[in-house]
Amino acid sequence: MPRQNTSHGARTRESILRAAADAASVDGLDGLSIGRLAAGLDMSKSGLFAHFGSKEDLQLATIEEARQRYAREVIAPGQAEGPGVNRIYALCESFLSYVERAVFPGGCFFAAAMAEFDCKAPGPVRERIAECQHQWMATLEHAVEEALAMGELRTGSDPRQLAFELEAALLAANWYFHLYSDATYFDRSRRAVRARLVSEATPAGLRSLKAGG
Amino acid sequence: MPRQNTSHGARTRESILRAAADAASVDGLDGLSIGRLAAGLDMSKSGLFAHFGSKEDLQLATIEEARQRYAREVIAPGQAEGPGVNRIYALCESFLSYVERAVFPGGCFFAAAMAEFDCKAPGPVRERIAECQHQWMATLEHAVEEALAMGELRTGSDPRQLAFELEAALLAANWYFHLYSDATYFDRSRRAVRARLVSEATPAGLRSLKAGG
Repeated sequence: MPRQNTSHGARTRESILRAAADAASVDGLDGLSIGRLAAGLDMSKSGLFAHFGSKEDLQLATIEEARQRYAREVIAPGQAEGPGVNRIYALCESFLSYVERAVFPGGCFFAAAMAEFDCKAPGPVRERIAECQHQWMATLEHAVEEALAMGELRTGSDPRQLAFELEAALLAANWYFHLYSDATYFDRSRRAVRARLVSEATPAGLRSLKAGG
Repeated sequence: MPRQNTSHGARTRESILRAAADAASVDGLDGLSIGRLAAGLDMSKSGLFAHFGSKEDLQLATIEEARQRYAREVIAPGQAEGPGVNRIYALCESFLSYVERAVFPGGCFFAAAMAEFDCKAPGPVRERIAECQHQWMATLEHAVEEALAMGELRTGSDPRQLAFELEAALLAANWYFHLYSDATYFDRSRRAVRARLVSEATPAGLRSLKAGG
C-alpha cells in the first residue's frame, strides 16, 4: 500500500512541521530541538529525523510551513478587501488579529525569526527569513501603490515610508502585548495605523475609510 | 594584597560582563555559553564560573551591564537636551545613533532580549527585561509629559500613545537595518519620528523643533 504509506508519511511530516513552527515562535528556530519535538509528538528521534536530513532542513521546512500559515491567516484576508486604503487597513488588521488569536503561540513567527536572525551570519535560514519578510513588506507597499493609483492617498505619499511606519506599529504591538500580557497594545497599534492612513488620505480615501468602518 | 586581588577580580568580572552583553545581543541571553565566553576571554570555565553562581546569575548581571550601557549611551545624551519636543527627539535620535554606532554588535540589547523572552515562562530574567523596557518607555512618556506641560505639544496629545508610536519606529529601524544591512532604515525612522512630533506640536513646539535642527 505505497499510496497509504505516502499519505501517512505526508501527514506525519505535516504534524511535525506544525509543531515545529509553534515551538519556534516561542523558543526560536535555533531553539528547535529534535528530541523535544519527537517527545511532544510521541515519536522516536530517529523516526522524526527520517523526515529531515538535518536541523537546517527542518528549519527551512518550518519556515515554509509558517509562510503558508501567514499567507492564509494574514495576507489572504487582507487581500480579500478591495484595493484602496481599506485594503491597507485590512492587511494591518489581519496581522493584529493573527497575533491576538495566537495563530502561533509565540506571536508573529516572522517577527520572532527576524529578531533571532537579524545579526546572525549569512546562511540559507537567515536568507529565507529575509525573503519572507520582504514579501510581506512588498505586499503592504503594493497596497499603498494601489491606493495611490486610485486617488485614495495624496500624491506625495511614499509607499516604502508608509509601509515601514505601518509595519513598525504592528511589530511593536506584537512585542509589547506579549511582554506585558496587555491587549491595550493592539488598540494603540490600531489607533496608530488609522491615524497614519487618515493623515495621508485624500477626501475620497477618507470616505472609503469611513464606509469600511 | 587583598585590595589588589579584589580590584583584579572586579576588572575580570567587568570584562566577562562586557563580553557577555555583546554576545547576548547577537545570540540571545539563553544562547550565552559559559564555555564560549571563557574561551573568548582566555579563561577556564571554572574560573569564569567562580564569578557567577549560575547561568541565571550571569544572565541577570549581563542585563545590569547592558542597562548601564543603555543609560549612558541612550538616556543620558537624550536627557542632556532641555525639556520639550527637542528632548523627545534627542532621546529617539540617541537610540538610533546607539544602534548605528553598534554600541552592541547585535543592535539594541533590549530589543533582542524582549523578542527572545516576550513569550517565555515568567522568571527573574524575563521580569528584569520587562522592568528595563518599562523604564525606557517611562522615560519617553515623561519627556512627552514635559513637552505637554511646556505647551510644546497639543493638549490632546496622549503620552502613552505617542511614546508607543515613537518606540515602534525605533524598534523597526533596529530590525530592518540589521536584516538587510541597509542604513536607509535609520532615515525612515528619523522621518517617522519627526513627522509624528510635527503633527502633535503647537506653534511653540514647531519653533523649538526648527531651532533644535
